[in-house]
Amino acid sequence: MTAAYDANNIFAKILRGDLPAHRIYEDDHSFAFMDIMPRGEGHCVVIPKASARNLLDIAAGDLATLIQTVQHVAKAALKAFDADGVTIEQFNEPAAGQSVYHLHFHIIPRFEGVALKPHSGTMEKSDVLAVNAEKMIGVLGN
Amino acid sequence: MTAAYDANNIFAKILRGDLPAHRIYEDDHSFAFMDIMPRGEGHCVVIPKASARNLLDIAAGDLATLIQTVQHVAKAALKAFDADGVTIEQFNEPAAGQSVYHLHFHIIPRFEGVALKPHSGTMEKSDVLAVNAEKMIGVLGN
Repeated sequence: MTAAYDANNIFAKILRGDLPAHRIYEDDHSFAFMDIMPRGEGHCVVIPKASARNLLDIAAGDLATLIQTVQHVAKAALKAFDADGVTIEQFNEPAAGQSVYHLHFHIIPRFEGVALKPHSGTMEKSDVLAVNAEKMIGVLGN
Repeated sequence: MTAAYDANNIFAKILRGDLPAHRIYEDDHSFAFMDIMPRGEGHCVVIPKASARNLLDIAAGDLATLIQTVQHVAKAALKAFDADGVTIEQFNEPAAGQSVYHLHFHIIPRFEGVALKPHSGTMEKSDVLAVNAEKMIGVLGN
């Protein structure tokens, strides 16, 4: 049903070190970094190291491991940004808004009265992302 | 940080059979049903049987099990509604849009060119939900 995995997607390139990212967490199975087009302060992304296009094709065991990193990063984001809540979003296929074809979970800290910014396509300044990555690393350890 | 689990939330009542739901799937650890205020055709909800307020307090093992049901239901929803994609959303705490305080994953089939409906608070007709539940059960088996 869904297309095959394309190893040239930008998250695969980040995993290989061919593209930079504001890395905040890594273990044997997962990798997390600051979203370069954040929809709110502290917006992070968690991805598996396994080659999966999205939730529809990842092996169940890899997904079970990945969601524990999502939880770990979500808890840390709440603390790092002194947030009031956390929104998790995960998009599968273009009709759902997926634009990078490597499975990823969005973790977006939320604050009372602050709406999510739209998917603007505007990149955040690298120094802002670097400061936020440090806040996350301060909680997650490294 | 987050409040304690409140066993009087409506999803706990559904699990206990004190409130009705258009059930589509159940196993020892998880339960799934049609969302009563769908943001799109075929909008389903997956919840753990464990008492967890949200992603921030569920035990890691329970979450690992739950996400496999989310994947199972998401794949079935794609097929049952002949959808083009699936959006997964999961909200933690009021600032993130959580309104029922039992952990739940939204599974929303997506169709090319069809935007998500807003959280309108409008309930779908029961017979529409029943038809959609049958479509899901037709794929998931039961």
